[in-house]
Amino acid sequence: MPLLVVGSVALDSVETPTARRDDVLGGSAVYFSYAASYFAPVRLVGVVGADWPQQHTALLAARGIDTSGLQVVPQAKTFRWRGKYLPNMNDRETLEVHLNVFGDFNPILPESFRQSRFLFLANGSPSLQMRVLDQVAGATLTVADTMDLWINIQHDELLQLFKRIDGLVLNDSEARLLTGEENLVVAGRKVQQMGPRFVVLKKGEHGAMFFSQHETYVMPAYPTGNVVDPTGAGDSFAGGMMGYLAERGNFEPTTLKEAMAYGTIVASFNVEDFSLDRMQRIGRADLDQRLTEYRKMLSF
Amino acid sequence: MPLLVVGSVALDSVETPTARRDDVLGGSAVYFSYAASYFAPVRLVGVVGADWPQQHTALLAARGIDTSGLQVVPQAKTFRWRGKYLPNMNDRETLEVHLNVFGDFNPILPESFRQSRFLFLANGSPSLQMRVLDQVAGATLTVADTMDLWINIQHDELLQLFKRIDGLVLNDSEARLLTGEENLVVAGRKVQQMGPRFVVLKKGEHGAMFFSQHETYVMPAYPTGNVVDPTGAGDSFAGGMMGYLAERGNFEPTTLKEAMAYGTIVASFNVEDFSLDRMQRIGRADLDQRLTEYRKMLSF
Repeated sequence: MPLLVVGSVALDSVETPTARRDDVLGGSAVYFSYAASYFAPVRLVGVVGADWPQQHTALLAARGIDTSGLQVVPQAKTFRWRGKYLPNMNDRETLEVHLNVFGDFNPILPESFRQSRFLFLANGSPSLQMRVLDQVAGATLTVADTMDLWINIQHDELLQLFKRIDGLVLNDSEARLLTGEENLVVAGRKVQQMGPRFVVLKKGEHGAMFFSQHETYVMPAYPTGNVVDPTGAGDSFAGGMMGYLAERGNFEPTTLKEAMAYGTIVASFNVEDFSLDRMQRIGRADLDQRLTEYRKMLSF
Repeated sequence: MPLLVVGSVALDSVETPTARRDDVLGGSAVYFSYAASYFAPVRLVGVVGADWPQQHTALLAARGIDTSGLQVVPQAKTFRWRGKYLPNMNDRETLEVHLNVFGDFNPILPESFRQSRFLFLANGSPSLQMRVLDQVAGATLTVADTMDLWINIQHDELLQLFKRIDGLVLNDSEARLLTGEENLVVAGRKVQQMGPRFVVLKKGEHGAMFFSQHETYVMPAYPTGNVVDPTGAGDSFAGGMMGYLAERGNFEPTTLKEAMAYGTIVASFNVEDFSLDRMQRIGRADLDQRLTEYRKMLSF
Protein backbone atom coordinates (compact mmCIF):
# COMPACT_ATOMS: atom_id res chain seq x y z
CA MET A 1 0.00 0.00 0.00
CA PRO A 2 1.37 3.48 -0.79
CA LEU A 3 2.19 5.53 2.29
CA LEU A 4 1.81 9.30 2.32
CA VAL A 5 3.88 11.53 4.60
CA VAL A 6 3.56 15.27 5.06
CA GLY A 7 6.16 17.10 7.12
CA SER A 8 9.34 19.08 7.29
CA VAL A 9 12.23 18.87 4.85
CA ALA A 10 15.30 20.55 6.22
CA LEU A 11 18.97 21.32 6.16
CA ASP A 12 20.36 20.41 9.57
CA SER A 13 23.56 21.41 11.31
CA VAL A 14 24.51 19.02 14.05
CA GLU A 15 27.19 19.12 16.72
CA THR A 16 28.05 16.12 18.84
CA PRO A 17 30.79 15.92 21.48
CA THR A 18 33.18 14.54 18.87
CA ALA A 19 32.04 15.73 15.44
CA ARG A 20 30.04 18.26 13.50
CA ARG A 21 28.17 18.48 10.19
CA ASP A 22 26.69 21.57 8.55
CA ASP A 23 23.66 21.82 6.29
CA VAL A 24 23.10 18.13 5.86
CA LEU A 25 19.90 16.54 4.59
CA GLY A 26 17.29 16.27 7.34
CA GLY A 27 13.71 16.97 8.37
CA SER A 28 10.97 14.76 9.75
CA ALA A 29 9.44 13.84 6.39
CA VAL A 30 12.87 13.00 4.95
CA TYR A 31 13.91 10.65 7.76
CA PHE A 32 10.45 9.13 7.76
CA SER A 33 10.33 8.59 3.99
CA TYR A 34 13.74 7.05 3.75
CA ALA A 35 13.03 4.64 6.61
CA ALA A 36 9.62 3.70 5.19
CA SER A 37 10.99 3.15 1.69
CA TYR A 38 12.43 -0.23 2.73
CA PHE A 39 8.89 -1.49 3.15
CA ALA A 40 6.39 0.32 0.93
CA PRO A 41 6.03 2.92 -1.84
CA VAL A 42 6.30 6.35 -0.22
CA ARG A 43 4.79 9.66 -1.28
CA LEU A 44 6.43 12.71 0.24
CA VAL A 45 4.83 16.13 0.62
CA GLY A 46 6.97 19.02 1.80
CA VAL A 47 8.42 22.35 0.81
CA VAL A 48 11.94 23.66 0.23
CA GLY A 49 13.57 26.86 -1.03
CA ALA A 50 15.80 27.81 -3.90
CA ASP A 51 18.86 26.77 -1.85
CA TRP A 52 17.77 23.12 -1.90
CA PRO A 53 20.44 20.90 -3.44
CA GLN A 54 18.88 18.88 -6.24
CA GLN A 55 20.95 15.83 -5.32
CA HIS A 56 18.92 15.47 -2.11
CA THR A 57 15.78 14.95 -4.15
CA ALA A 58 17.69 12.51 -6.34
CA LEU A 59 18.77 10.55 -3.25
CA LEU A 60 15.15 10.12 -2.15
CA ALA A 61 13.97 9.30 -5.66
CA ALA A 62 16.67 6.65 -5.92
CA ARG A 63 14.89 4.74 -3.17
CA GLY A 64 11.66 4.93 -5.10
CA ILE A 65 10.19 7.75 -3.00
CA ASP A 66 7.67 9.77 -5.01
CA THR A 67 8.92 13.35 -4.61
CA SER A 68 6.33 14.94 -6.88
CA GLY A 69 4.77 16.50 -3.77
CA LEU A 70 7.99 18.29 -2.84
CA GLN A 71 7.35 21.89 -3.68
CA VAL A 72 10.30 24.16 -4.49
CA VAL A 73 9.62 27.83 -3.75
CA PRO A 74 11.91 30.20 -5.63
CA GLN A 75 13.32 33.20 -3.76
CA ALA A 76 12.79 31.36 -0.46
CA LYS A 77 15.06 29.44 1.84
CA THR A 78 14.77 25.88 3.14
CA PHE A 79 13.93 25.19 6.80
CA ARG A 80 17.14 25.08 8.84
CA TRP A 81 17.82 23.62 12.25
CA ARG A 82 21.03 23.67 14.28
CA GLY A 83 21.42 21.57 17.38
CA LYS A 84 23.99 20.26 19.78
CA TYR A 85 23.94 16.94 21.62
CA LEU A 86 24.97 16.65 25.24
CA PRO A 87 27.65 14.10 26.11
CA ASN A 88 24.96 11.48 26.91
CA MET A 89 23.87 11.70 23.23
CA ASN A 90 20.25 11.46 24.33
CA ASP A 91 19.51 15.06 25.29
CA ARG A 92 20.05 17.95 22.93
CA GLU A 93 19.90 21.70 22.77
CA THR A 94 18.43 23.56 19.82
CA LEU A 95 20.82 26.37 18.91
CA GLU A 96 19.01 27.86 15.90
CA VAL A 97 15.73 27.35 14.08
CA HIS A 98 14.92 29.17 10.84
CA LEU A 99 11.51 28.03 9.66
CA ASN A 100 11.95 29.95 6.40
CA VAL A 101 9.66 28.49 3.71
CA PHE A 102 8.28 25.86 6.14
CA GLY A 103 6.74 28.69 8.19
CA ASP A 104 4.13 29.30 5.47
CA PHE A 105 3.75 25.65 4.49
CA ASN A 106 0.19 24.99 3.42
CA PRO A 107 0.22 21.63 1.74
CA ILE A 108 -2.08 21.17 -1.22
CA LEU A 109 -1.85 17.51 -2.07
CA PRO A 110 -1.52 16.34 -5.67
CA GLU A 111 -4.78 14.72 -6.74
CA SER A 112 -3.16 11.30 -7.03
CA PHE A 113 -1.96 11.46 -3.41
CA ARG A 114 -5.43 12.09 -1.98
CA GLN A 115 -6.44 8.46 -2.37
CA SER A 116 -3.64 7.27 -0.05
CA ARG A 117 -4.80 4.76 2.54
CA PHE A 118 -1.86 5.11 4.93
CA LEU A 119 -1.01 8.59 6.11
CA PHE A 120 1.62 9.97 8.47
CA LEU A 121 1.44 13.55 9.67
CA ALA A 122 5.01 14.38 10.65
CA ASN A 123 6.24 17.55 12.31
CA GLY A 124 3.74 20.38 11.79
CA SER A 125 1.07 22.31 13.68
CA PRO A 126 -2.16 20.49 14.54
CA SER A 127 -4.13 22.91 12.35
CA LEU A 128 -1.86 22.15 9.40
CA GLN A 129 -2.16 18.45 10.15
CA MET A 130 -5.97 18.74 10.14
CA ARG A 131 -5.91 20.56 6.81
CA VAL A 132 -4.03 17.58 5.42
CA LEU A 133 -6.53 15.16 6.97
CA ASP A 134 -9.33 17.03 5.21
CA GLN A 135 -7.67 16.22 1.89
CA VAL A 136 -7.21 12.49 2.55
CA ALA A 137 -10.73 11.68 3.59
CA GLY A 138 -10.54 7.98 2.71
CA ALA A 139 -7.44 7.06 4.70
CA THR A 140 -7.59 3.73 6.54
CA LEU A 141 -4.78 4.54 8.94
CA THR A 142 -3.73 8.02 10.00
CA VAL A 143 -0.93 8.55 12.48
CA ALA A 144 0.45 11.88 13.66
CA ASP A 145 3.53 13.07 15.46
CA THR A 146 3.51 16.15 17.66
CA MET A 147 5.91 18.25 19.71
CA ASP A 148 6.09 20.39 22.84
CA LEU A 149 5.61 23.62 20.89
CA TRP A 150 2.11 22.57 19.78
CA ILE A 151 1.19 21.27 23.21
CA ASN A 152 1.98 24.75 24.48
CA ILE A 153 0.57 27.00 21.76
CA GLN A 154 -2.13 24.94 19.96
CA HIS A 155 -3.49 22.86 22.80
CA ASP A 156 -7.13 22.96 21.71
CA GLU A 157 -6.31 22.17 18.08
CA LEU A 158 -4.17 19.28 19.26
CA LEU A 159 -7.05 17.82 21.27
CA GLN A 160 -9.28 18.17 18.19
CA LEU A 161 -6.67 16.38 16.10
CA PHE A 162 -6.53 13.52 18.62
CA LYS A 163 -10.19 12.74 17.95
CA ARG A 164 -9.50 12.39 14.24
CA ILE A 165 -6.43 10.15 14.12
CA ASP A 166 -5.84 6.46 14.69
CA GLY A 167 -2.40 6.71 16.19
CA LEU A 168 -0.20 9.28 17.88
CA VAL A 169 3.57 9.20 18.19
CA LEU A 170 5.19 11.45 20.79
CA ASN A 171 8.19 11.41 23.08
CA ASP A 172 8.37 10.94 26.84
CA SER A 173 8.78 14.60 27.80
CA GLU A 174 5.87 15.55 25.55
CA ALA A 175 3.62 12.92 27.14
CA ARG A 176 4.54 14.28 30.57
CA LEU A 177 3.88 17.86 29.48
CA LEU A 178 0.55 16.94 27.95
CA THR A 179 -0.78 15.00 30.94
CA GLY A 180 1.09 16.40 33.94
CA GLU A 181 1.92 12.79 34.86
CA GLU A 182 5.50 11.77 35.62
CA ASN A 183 4.94 8.02 35.39
CA LEU A 184 5.13 7.14 31.69
CA VAL A 185 2.69 4.25 31.93
CA VAL A 186 0.08 6.53 33.45
CA ALA A 187 0.93 9.34 31.02
CA GLY A 188 0.72 7.04 27.98
CA ARG A 189 -2.66 5.68 29.02
CA LYS A 190 -4.00 9.18 29.62
CA VAL A 191 -2.87 10.35 26.18
CA GLN A 192 -4.56 7.33 24.62
CA GLN A 193 -7.77 8.25 26.43
CA MET A 194 -7.64 11.69 24.79
CA GLY A 195 -8.66 10.14 21.48
CA PRO A 196 -6.11 8.17 19.47
CA ARG A 197 -6.77 4.43 19.18
CA PHE A 198 -3.13 3.84 19.97
CA VAL A 199 -0.20 5.85 21.29
CA VAL A 200 3.50 5.22 20.75
CA LEU A 201 5.62 6.88 23.39
CA LYS A 202 9.26 7.21 22.34
CA LYS A 203 11.95 7.15 25.03
CA GLY A 204 15.05 7.76 22.89
CA GLU A 205 17.88 5.40 23.85
CA HIS A 206 15.49 3.57 26.19
CA GLY A 207 13.10 2.41 23.48
CA ALA A 208 9.37 2.90 23.08
CA MET A 209 6.07 2.08 24.75
CA PHE A 210 2.76 1.17 23.15
CA PHE A 211 -0.69 1.91 24.51
CA SER A 212 -4.09 0.94 23.21
CA GLN A 213 -7.33 0.33 25.07
CA HIS A 214 -6.41 -3.30 25.70
CA GLU A 215 -2.64 -3.34 25.53
CA THR A 216 0.36 -1.76 27.21
CA TYR A 217 3.84 -2.87 26.33
CA VAL A 218 7.39 -1.66 26.09
CA MET A 219 10.14 -2.41 23.61
CA PRO A 220 13.74 -1.54 24.43
CA ALA A 221 15.97 0.19 21.90
CA TYR A 222 18.32 -2.13 20.05
CA PRO A 223 21.61 -1.81 21.95
CA THR A 224 24.06 -0.26 19.52
CA GLY A 225 27.47 0.82 20.79
CA ASN A 226 27.91 3.15 17.86
CA VAL A 227 25.72 6.21 18.40
CA VAL A 228 27.07 8.93 16.10
CA ASP A 229 24.05 11.23 15.63
CA PRO A 230 20.59 10.62 17.12
CA THR A 231 18.94 13.22 14.83
CA GLY A 232 15.98 11.70 13.05
CA ALA A 233 15.82 8.60 15.24
CA GLY A 234 12.18 9.24 16.18
CA ASP A 235 11.15 9.94 12.58
CA SER A 236 13.03 6.87 11.35
CA PHE A 237 11.27 4.85 14.01
CA ALA A 238 7.91 6.13 12.78
CA GLY A 239 8.95 5.51 9.17
CA GLY A 240 9.95 1.92 9.83
CA MET A 241 6.77 1.34 11.79
CA MET A 242 4.38 2.90 9.27
CA GLY A 243 6.29 1.45 6.32
CA TYR A 244 5.82 -2.04 7.70
CA LEU A 245 2.12 -1.43 8.38
CA ALA A 246 1.67 -0.18 4.82
CA GLU A 247 3.55 -3.20 3.49
CA ARG A 248 1.29 -5.53 5.43
CA GLY A 249 -1.80 -3.47 4.64
CA ASN A 250 -3.33 -3.78 8.11
CA PHE A 251 -2.82 -2.63 11.67
CA GLU A 252 -3.94 -5.58 13.72
CA PRO A 253 -2.36 -5.76 17.20
CA THR A 254 0.19 -8.41 16.11
CA THR A 255 1.13 -6.41 13.01
CA LEU A 256 1.48 -3.26 15.11
CA LYS A 257 3.89 -4.98 17.45
CA GLU A 258 6.03 -6.25 14.58
CA ALA A 259 5.90 -2.71 13.19
CA MET A 260 7.17 -1.31 16.52
CA ALA A 261 10.06 -3.77 16.32
CA TYR A 262 10.93 -2.74 12.76
CA GLY A 263 10.75 0.92 13.81
CA THR A 264 13.21 0.13 16.61
CA ILE A 265 15.60 -1.55 14.20
CA VAL A 266 15.49 1.19 11.57
CA ALA A 267 16.13 3.83 14.25
CA SER A 268 19.10 1.85 15.56
CA PHE A 269 20.76 2.01 12.13
CA ASN A 270 19.85 5.64 11.62
CA VAL A 271 21.77 6.83 14.69
CA GLU A 272 24.95 5.10 13.56
CA ASP A 273 25.96 8.00 11.31
CA PHE A 274 24.99 11.58 10.41
CA SER A 275 21.98 12.40 8.24
CA LEU A 276 21.00 9.41 6.07
CA ASP A 277 24.59 8.25 5.71
CA ARG A 278 24.16 4.95 7.56
CA MET A 279 20.80 4.24 5.97
CA GLN A 280 22.31 4.64 2.52
CA ARG A 281 24.65 1.75 3.23
CA ILE A 282 21.96 -0.77 4.23
CA GLY A 283 19.25 -2.77 2.54
CA ARG A 284 16.15 -4.62 3.69
CA ALA A 285 18.24 -7.73 4.41
CA ASP A 286 20.25 -5.80 7.03
CA LEU A 287 17.03 -4.72 8.71
CA ASP A 288 15.71 -8.28 8.71
CA GLN A 289 18.96 -9.65 10.08
CA ARG A 290 19.06 -7.18 12.98
CA LEU A 291 15.36 -7.80 13.61
CA THR A 292 16.05 -11.51 13.96
CA GLU A 293 18.84 -10.76 16.43
CA TYR A 294 16.57 -8.37 18.34
CA ARG A 295 13.79 -10.94 18.51
CA LYS A 296 16.27 -13.46 19.88
CA MET A 297 17.48 -10.95 22.48
CA LEU A 298 13.94 -10.58 23.79
CA SER A 299 13.17 -14.31 23.89
CA PHE A 300 13.67 -16.28 27.05
CA MET B 1 20.61 -24.67 46.22
CA PRO B 2 21.02 -22.42 49.26
CA LEU B 3 21.94 -18.85 48.42
CA LEU B 4 24.12 -16.77 50.72
CA VAL B 5 23.91 -12.98 50.83
CA VAL B 6 26.11 -10.60 52.79
CA GLY B 7 25.23 -6.93 52.92
CA SER B 8 23.54 -4.07 54.67
CA VAL B 9 20.51 -4.32 56.93
CA ALA B 10 19.00 -0.93 57.55
CA LEU B 11 16.26 1.30 58.80
CA ASP B 12 15.29 3.60 55.93
CA SER B 13 13.42 6.87 55.89
CA VAL B 14 11.96 7.65 52.51
CA GLU B 15 10.28 10.72 51.10
CA THR B 16 8.47 10.69 47.77
CA PRO B 17 6.59 13.60 46.19
CA THR B 18 3.36 12.30 47.74
CA ALA B 19 4.23 10.28 50.85
CA ARG B 20 6.79 9.60 53.53
CA ARG B 21 7.85 6.70 55.76
CA ASP B 22 10.29 6.77 58.67
CA ASP B 23 12.56 3.98 59.94
CA VAL B 24 11.12 1.23 57.81
CA LEU B 25 12.79 -2.09 57.13
CA GLY B 26 15.42 -1.78 54.39
CA GLY B 27 19.00 -2.48 53.39
CA SER B 28 20.51 -4.28 50.41
CA ALA B 29 20.68 -7.71 52.04
CA VAL B 30 17.08 -7.44 53.26
CA TYR B 31 15.58 -6.55 49.87
CA PHE B 32 17.77 -9.15 48.23
CA SER B 33 16.86 -11.92 50.68
CA TYR B 34 13.17 -11.33 50.56
CA ALA B 35 13.14 -11.30 46.74
CA ALA B 36 15.29 -14.44 46.54
CA SER B 37 13.18 -16.30 49.09
CA TYR B 38 10.49 -16.95 46.45
CA PHE B 39 12.96 -19.20 44.64
CA ALA B 40 15.54 -20.74 46.97
CA PRO B 41 16.58 -21.13 50.61
CA VAL B 42 18.36 -17.92 51.61
CA ARG B 43 21.07 -17.36 54.23
CA LEU B 44 21.48 -13.78 55.32
CA VAL B 45 24.60 -12.29 56.91
CA GLY B 46 24.43 -8.78 58.28
CA VAL B 47 24.65 -6.68 61.39
CA VAL B 48 22.21 -4.54 63.36
CA GLY B 49 22.15 -2.63 66.61
CA ALA B 50 20.16 -2.77 69.82
CA ASP B 51 17.46 -0.59 68.23
CA TRP B 52 16.58 -3.34 65.73
CA PRO B 53 12.91 -4.31 66.01
CA GLN B 54 12.69 -8.05 66.53
CA GLN B 55 9.61 -8.28 64.30
CA HIS B 56 11.78 -7.45 61.28
CA THR B 57 13.79 -10.61 61.89
CA ALA B 58 10.54 -12.50 62.33
CA LEU B 59 9.26 -11.19 59.00
CA LEU B 60 12.33 -12.52 57.20
CA ALA B 61 12.24 -15.82 59.06
CA ALA B 62 8.59 -16.23 58.11
CA ARG B 63 9.69 -16.51 54.47
CA GLY B 64 12.17 -19.20 55.42
CA ILE B 65 15.21 -16.92 55.36
CA ASP B 66 17.95 -18.24 57.64
CA THR B 67 18.73 -15.24 59.85
CA SER B 68 21.26 -17.01 62.06
CA GLY B 69 23.98 -14.88 60.43
CA LEU B 70 22.29 -11.64 61.46
CA GLN B 71 24.47 -10.35 64.27
CA VAL B 72 22.92 -8.04 66.88
CA VAL B 73 25.45 -5.72 68.50
CA PRO B 74 24.30 -4.36 71.88
CA GLN B 75 24.96 -0.71 72.63
CA ALA B 76 25.15 0.00 68.91
CA LYS B 77 22.74 1.45 66.40
CA THR B 78 21.48 0.02 63.13
CA PHE B 79 22.55 1.52 59.78
CA ARG B 80 20.18 4.33 58.82
CA TRP B 81 19.57 5.95 55.47
CA ARG B 82 17.28 8.84 54.60
CA GLY B 83 16.49 9.74 51.03
CA LYS B 84 14.15 11.74 48.90
CA TYR B 85 12.90 10.92 45.42
CA LEU B 86 12.60 13.54 42.72
CA PRO B 87 9.24 13.89 40.96
CA ASN B 88 10.39 11.51 38.19
CA MET B 89 10.68 8.77 40.87
CA ASN B 90 13.85 7.53 39.19
CA ASP B 91 16.46 9.92 40.62
CA ARG B 92 16.98 10.43 44.32
CA GLU B 93 18.91 12.47 46.78
CA THR B 94 20.49 11.00 49.89
CA LEU B 95 19.67 13.28 52.82
CA GLU B 96 21.36 11.37 55.64
CA VAL B 97 23.53 8.30 56.07
CA HIS B 98 24.47 6.93 59.48
CA LEU B 99 26.58 3.81 58.96
CA ASN B 100 26.51 3.11 62.72
CA VAL B 101 27.20 -0.57 63.35
CA PHE B 102 27.55 -1.28 59.61
CA GLY B 103 30.66 0.93 59.56
CA ASP B 104 32.65 -1.71 61.48
CA PHE B 105 30.97 -4.68 59.83
CA ASN B 106 33.46 -7.51 59.50
CA PRO B 107 31.44 -10.57 58.65
CA ILE B 108 32.59 -13.86 60.14
CA LEU B 109 30.41 -16.47 58.49
CA PRO B 110 28.85 -19.29 60.51
CA GLU B 111 30.61 -22.55 59.66
CA SER B 112 27.48 -23.96 58.02
CA PHE B 113 27.26 -20.97 55.64
CA ARG B 114 30.79 -21.40 54.29
CA GLN B 115 29.79 -24.31 52.08
CA SER B 116 27.28 -22.17 50.15
CA ARG B 117 27.55 -22.58 46.41
CA PHE B 118 25.67 -19.43 45.41
CA LEU B 119 26.90 -16.16 46.88
CA PHE B 120 25.81 -12.56 46.51
CA LEU B 121 27.97 -9.75 47.84
CA ALA B 122 25.55 -6.87 48.33
CA ASN B 123 26.39 -3.31 49.33
CA GLY B 124 29.80 -3.20 51.02
CA SER B 125 33.38 -2.17 50.31
CA PRO B 126 35.39 -4.31 47.88
CA SER B 127 37.82 -5.21 50.66
CA LEU B 128 34.95 -6.42 52.83
CA GLN B 129 33.53 -8.30 49.86
CA MET B 130 36.90 -10.01 49.32
CA ARG B 131 37.11 -11.01 52.97
CA VAL B 132 33.77 -12.75 52.50
CA LEU B 133 34.97 -14.44 49.31
CA ASP B 134 37.94 -15.82 51.27
CA GLN B 135 35.49 -17.58 53.58
CA VAL B 136 33.38 -19.16 50.81
CA ALA B 137 36.16 -20.73 48.82
CA GLY B 138 34.01 -23.40 47.20
CA ALA B 139 31.31 -21.16 45.71
CA THR B 140 30.16 -22.05 42.21
CA LEU B 141 28.66 -18.66 41.45
CA THR B 142 29.69 -15.38 43.08
CA VAL B 143 28.06 -12.13 42.09
CA ALA B 144 28.77 -8.70 43.59
CA ASP B 145 27.09 -5.34 43.60
CA THR B 146 29.06 -2.13 43.90
CA MET B 147 28.45 1.61 44.14
CA ASP B 148 29.98 4.96 43.19
CA LEU B 149 31.59 5.42 46.62
CA TRP B 150 33.83 2.36 46.10
CA ILE B 151 34.64 3.31 42.52
CA ASN B 152 35.93 6.57 43.93
CA ILE B 153 37.72 5.50 47.13
CA GLN B 154 38.62 1.79 46.64
CA HIS B 155 39.29 1.68 42.93
CA ASP B 156 42.23 -0.74 43.10
CA GLU B 157 40.45 -3.11 45.48
CA LEU B 158 37.42 -3.04 43.18
CA LEU B 159 39.53 -4.06 40.19
CA GLN B 160 41.00 -6.88 42.28
CA LEU B 161 37.50 -7.99 43.22
CA PHE B 162 36.46 -8.03 39.55
CA LYS B 163 39.05 -10.72 38.84
CA ARG B 164 37.57 -12.94 41.54
CA ILE B 165 33.84 -12.84 40.81
CA ASP B 166 31.63 -14.39 38.16
CA GLY B 167 29.12 -11.60 37.89
CA LEU B 168 28.86 -7.91 38.65
CA VAL B 169 25.68 -5.90 39.11
CA LEU B 170 25.92 -2.11 38.91
CA ASN B 171 23.82 0.79 37.75
CA ASP B 172 24.16 2.97 34.66
CA SER B 173 25.80 5.97 36.33
CA GLU B 174 28.30 3.67 38.07
CA ALA B 175 29.22 2.01 34.77
CA ARG B 176 29.79 5.43 33.23
CA LEU B 177 31.89 6.56 36.20
CA LEU B 178 33.97 3.39 36.11
CA THR B 179 34.72 3.49 32.38
CA GLY B 180 34.42 7.13 31.38
CA GLU B 181 32.12 5.98 28.58
CA GLU B 182 28.72 7.61 28.06
CA ASN B 183 27.29 4.94 25.75
CA LEU B 184 25.99 2.17 28.00
CA VAL B 185 26.66 -0.61 25.50
CA VAL B 186 30.30 0.44 25.29
CA ALA B 187 30.49 0.99 29.07
CA GLY B 188 28.95 -2.40 29.86
CA ARG B 189 31.34 -4.22 27.54
CA LYS B 190 34.31 -2.41 29.06
CA VAL B 191 33.27 -3.32 32.60
CA GLN B 192 32.91 -6.94 31.51
CA GLN B 193 36.46 -6.85 30.13
CA MET B 194 37.71 -5.78 33.56
CA GLY B 195 37.16 -9.28 34.87
CA PRO B 196 33.62 -10.47 35.61
CA ARG B 197 32.29 -13.23 33.34
CA PHE B 198 29.06 -11.28 33.08
CA VAL B 199 27.82 -7.81 33.93
CA VAL B 200 24.27 -6.71 34.66
CA LEU B 201 23.81 -2.98 34.14
CA LYS B 202 20.69 -1.65 35.86
CA LYS B 203 18.89 1.34 34.31
CA GLY B 204 16.14 1.88 36.90
CA GLU B 205 12.76 2.45 35.26
CA HIS B 206 14.34 1.67 31.88
CA GLY B 207 15.29 -1.92 32.70
CA ALA B 208 18.62 -3.71 32.60
CA MET B 209 21.33 -4.76 30.18
CA PHE B 210 23.38 -7.95 30.17
CA PHE B 211 26.94 -8.34 28.94
CA SER B 212 29.11 -11.44 28.64
CA GLN B 213 31.90 -12.22 26.21
CA HIS B 214 29.47 -13.52 23.63
CA GLU B 215 26.21 -11.80 24.46
CA THR B 216 24.76 -8.32 24.79
CA TYR B 217 21.09 -7.82 25.42
CA VAL B 218 18.63 -5.51 27.05
CA MET B 219 15.44 -6.17 29.00
CA PRO B 220 12.97 -3.36 29.63
CA ALA B 221 11.44 -2.83 33.05
CA TYR B 222 7.93 -4.24 33.43
CA PRO B 223 5.68 -1.22 32.84
CA THR B 224 3.90 -0.62 36.13
CA GLY B 225 1.81 2.51 36.52
CA ASN B 226 1.99 2.26 40.27
CA VAL B 227 5.47 3.34 41.39
CA VAL B 228 5.21 4.19 45.10
CA ASP B 229 8.81 3.77 46.32
CA PRO B 230 11.73 2.64 44.14
CA THR B 231 13.97 1.94 47.18
CA GLY B 232 15.39 -1.56 46.97
CA ALA B 233 14.43 -2.09 43.32
CA GLY B 234 18.01 -2.90 42.33
CA ASP B 235 18.52 -5.27 45.26
CA SER B 236 15.17 -6.97 44.60
CA PHE B 237 16.19 -7.35 40.99
CA ALA B 238 19.43 -9.02 42.06
CA GLY B 239 17.54 -11.16 44.59
CA GLY B 240 15.05 -12.39 42.01
CA MET B 241 17.84 -13.07 39.55
CA MET B 242 20.15 -14.91 41.98
CA GLY B 243 17.23 -16.70 43.63
CA TYR B 244 16.18 -18.15 40.30
CA LEU B 245 19.76 -19.17 39.44
CA ALA B 246 20.06 -20.91 42.83
CA GLU B 247 16.71 -22.61 42.26
CA ARG B 248 17.86 -23.90 38.89
CA GLY B 249 21.35 -24.70 40.18
CA ASN B 250 23.18 -23.41 37.11
CA PHE B 251 24.00 -20.23 35.27
CA GLU B 252 23.90 -21.26 31.64
CA PRO B 253 23.14 -18.39 29.22
CA THR B 254 19.48 -19.42 28.86
CA THR B 255 19.06 -19.71 32.63
CA LEU B 256 20.72 -16.32 33.12
CA LYS B 257 18.27 -14.68 30.74
CA GLU B 258 15.28 -16.22 32.52
CA ALA B 259 16.85 -15.04 35.77
CA MET B 260 17.12 -11.48 34.41
CA ALA B 261 13.43 -11.64 33.56
CA TYR B 262 12.50 -12.84 37.06
CA GLY B 263 14.66 -10.07 38.54
CA THR B 264 12.72 -7.57 36.43
CA ILE B 265 9.40 -8.92 37.63
CA VAL B 266 10.33 -9.00 41.33
CA ALA B 267 11.61 -5.42 41.11
CA SER B 268 8.37 -4.32 39.45
CA PHE B 269 6.38 -5.57 42.45
CA ASN B 270 8.84 -4.17 44.96
CA VAL B 271 8.39 -0.57 43.78
CA GLU B 272 4.62 -0.75 44.16
CA ASP B 273 4.78 0.05 47.87
CA PHE B 274 7.17 1.14 50.63
CA SER B 275 9.70 -1.22 52.20
CA LEU B 276 8.64 -4.86 51.73
CA ASP B 277 4.94 -4.03 51.95
CA ARG B 278 4.05 -5.02 48.40
CA MET B 279 6.25 -8.11 48.48
CA GLN B 280 4.48 -9.32 51.61
CA ARG B 281 1.21 -9.44 49.71
CA ILE B 282 2.44 -11.63 46.84
CA GLY B 283 3.44 -15.24 46.31
CA ARG B 284 5.37 -17.14 43.69
CA ALA B 285 2.20 -17.50 41.58
CA ASP B 286 1.96 -13.71 41.24
CA LEU B 287 5.55 -13.58 40.03
CA ASP B 288 4.93 -16.34 37.52
CA GLN B 289 1.76 -14.72 36.26
CA ARG B 290 3.45 -11.36 35.66
CA LEU B 291 6.40 -13.13 34.08
CA THR B 292 4.07 -14.80 31.59
CA GLU B 293 2.54 -11.43 30.78
CA TYR B 294 6.03 -9.91 30.41
CA ARG B 295 7.14 -12.71 28.10
CA LYS B 296 4.08 -12.13 25.96
CA MET B 297 4.80 -8.38 25.85
CA LEU B 298 8.23 -9.07 24.42
CA SER B 299 7.07 -11.61 21.84
CA PHE B 300 6.29 -10.53 18.32
